[in-house]
Amino acid sequence: MLFASLLKSIVRRGSMVLIDGAGRRHRIGDGSVPRLTVRLTRRRLDYSLALNPKLSIGEAYMDGSLRVEQGSVMDLLMLLAGNLDTVGPGHWLNWGTHARSLLPSRVHAARARRNVAHHYDLSPALYDLFLDADQQYSCAYFTSPDDTLDAAQAQKQRHIAAKLLLDRPGLRVLDIGSGWGGLALFLARHGAAEVTGITLSVEQQRESTARAAAAGLSDRVRFHLRDYRQEQGTYDRIVSVGMFEHVGRGSYGAFFATLRRLLREDGVALLHSVGDSAGPGPINPFIRKYIFPGADVPSLSEVLRVVERSGILVTDIEILRLHYAETLLRWRERFVTNRAAVLQLYDERFFRMWEFYLALCEAGFRTRSSMVFQMQLARRNDVLPLTRDYMVEAERPTATRPALSDAAV
Amino acid sequence: MLFASLLKSIVRRGSMVLIDGAGRRHRIGDGSVPRLTVRLTRRRLDYSLALNPKLSIGEAYMDGSLRVEQGSVMDLLMLLAGNLDTVGPGHWLNWGTHARSLLPSRVHAARARRNVAHHYDLSPALYDLFLDADQQYSCAYFTSPDDTLDAAQAQKQRHIAAKLLLDRPGLRVLDIGSGWGGLALFLARHGAAEVTGITLSVEQQRESTARAAAAGLSDRVRFHLRDYRQEQGTYDRIVSVGMFEHVGRGSYGAFFATLRRLLREDGVALLHSVGDSAGPGPINPFIRKYIFPGADVPSLSEVLRVVERSGILVTDIEILRLHYAETLLRWRERFVTNRAAVLQLYDERFFRMWEFYLALCEAGFRTRSSMVFQMQLARRNDVLPLTRDYMVEAERPTATRPALSDAAV
Repeated sequence: MLFASLLKSIVRRGSMVLIDGAGRRHRIGDGSVPRLTVRLTRRRLDYSLALNPKLSIGEAYMDGSLRVEQGSVMDLLMLLAGNLDTVGPGHWLNWGTHARSLLPSRVHAARARRNVAHHYDLSPALYDLFLDADQQYSCAYFTSPDDTLDAAQAQKQRHIAAKLLLDRPGLRVLDIGSGWGGLALFLARHGAAEVTGITLSVEQQRESTARAAAAGLSDRVRFHLRDYRQEQGTYDRIVSVGMFEHVGRGSYGAFFATLRRLLREDGVALLHSVGDSAGPGPINPFIRKYIFPGADVPSLSEVLRVVERSGILVTDIEILRLHYAETLLRWRERFVTNRAAVLQLYDERFFRMWEFYLALCEAGFRTRSSMVFQMQLARRNDVLPLTRDYMVEAERPTATRPALSDAAV
Repeated sequence: MLFASLLKSIVRRGSMVLIDGAGRRHRIGDGSVPRLTVRLTRRRLDYSLALNPKLSIGEAYMDGSLRVEQGSVMDLLMLLAGNLDTVGPGHWLNWGTHARSLLPSRVHAARARRNVAHHYDLSPALYDLFLDADQQYSCAYFTSPDDTLDAAQAQKQRHIAAKLLLDRPGLRVLDIGSGWGGLALFLARHGAAEVTGITLSVEQQRESTARAAAAGLSDRVRFHLRDYRQEQGTYDRIVSVGMFEHVGRGSYGAFFATLRRLLREDGVALLHSVGDSAGPGPINPFIRKYIFPGADVPSLSEVLRVVERSGILVTDIEILRLHYAETLLRWRERFVTNRAAVLQLYDERFFRMWEFYLALCEAGFRTRSSMVFQMQLARRNDVLPLTRDYMVEAERPTATRPALSDAAV
């Protein structure tokens, strides 16, 4: 049983029972009482699980041939992620990291549209089943682990707005990867900004445009179906939340060259992206194959190397770690709670695929390697105040807003 | 006149008059009325200035063969720095950047001691002439450009202490590169910490030990003459301010491996260093030859590349840009004001060498390329609070302190 041997070689902390395709039980781990039992229902699974576990565990869970009989798939993933983290980059399971990083993927416009359609053009009803009321599909900002998802997503919007220094009404803001429009609408209302959102998802563009109309903001918030490289004009502020993961590391140079071209000389930009603390490496193959084709998880070092060459200045970097774990936990709880509704839209395999995706990502943030960075950028060194105090001020619930406030809309 | 031709090819904004060794006047720049006149007193200067201006301008200023007749040496450096910045890394003046970065300098312990002695074992009386009362020889933290140097240096100490999360008395703190002991004494008083400071400067170790004794803190603050690689034991908190510049890029791996070894699993570290926004490159050759032998100015990308491999997590990065320009301005003003006193310690050449050094560094921070980063690090992702709010809280003048406060000392 190769897979059992592999698990035994990896798992040093925690324990589990594996029941293989022939019905044999394997005790794995540090000798503690196992609260996790996994059963394989096919003998032939052994080879693929042992040879390419990062892909095959997800595939086997998805097709039902790997079943979690005691505990949850999250327990399995936490056990693996926690121990893989300690085996380090030298372990053969992490081989390929370096080789892959030498083959940067350029994501051209046509490919980018297909990649986006794969995920974001799924039924809007699906996203309604697990996102917050404002449909923010990115890491929320928790002031406490007790915050609700809705509260934490609202705090995220304020947090980002604070870093954009919306110090006067009428600022022209570009939102690259505008999703279902929540942030753009917030910036228009809260910051009295003129916002242009661009997305490659037909569904998102349609829905966000409808939301702007319903909010009576069509004159100040517009959404276009457009690749960032095709955007023209210049902006006072540029924000991009949860889109950079789709850029592809071969296109980072194009991304920052575009950012520099679109950002006014006295402008401010904020880039919010998932990052990998362990350095440049491949994204999990299951995620890349089934969830986000063409996606890369950048490390701060590789992003900054490109920024340094681009002539843009980094002005602040905040690292959010457990925030995305808390976000993903709430998404998965809602997703699982709404299982019946998901099955009305898609099938059992899809449900398990997405349950696995949400659990896998959460495990990455609970253990050490995944993070979110908010990188603030400017073209001049004197555009922002001397200290970060303005962010704190702007985020206070009592902070005064620019002239055009909610009440005026 | 090669040097005049070089200046004409570089200077696109601003203007100056160059009077060459034969007494000929060269109008250089954008046609605006020049408020800067530079005279060369030797004909043979032309070649060295044209071939290696980054080294030779400073040398010529130092030996008196390049004189500023109208304006100041700061005006000359701002004109050059502002325009060099726009010529970009492709300009031949910036060649060698890449080649140099391929030859990382390892700074071994014996060399490190010699490098440190060159600068920090100068007469303590010299540093008294331009530093603040607490003798902080690193970038201060200005809440306003009107802050006095003493106020800004005190704010810097609070700012750093806030990031160290001194949440209980008796924390064991290591200060790598402890200078004249100001920060260590502050952390002991303000944060009720047990501080070990290490330095390679005989003068600094002597003076800081005397200060600890005078403050009645000898039982809680100790200073050792010791290389960071020789330090043993483990610490709850590690801080290093303005020392990383001396590590040498070939030794960054050793630095972070040491940091990881010395930092407890639930520890927090703060690294404060000058950085180069334009990417990995050589330090100015004048600074390296006359002021800081063996020093390197790291870029964030190269530091983070090493951190990512080290198994340490980045938890926050603050970028300070104009703060060091304001600090250097105040140092240079004091230094120049105390010219007579400097000349009692050293000679005219030394005075001009240091005046040039302080002006050159300030120009780097006023223009775009130089910055200071404060990089907060931890070994676990759950050691620090979810948000940065604790830093803000700790920095408030009214913040409550741990049980053992100033009053108790």
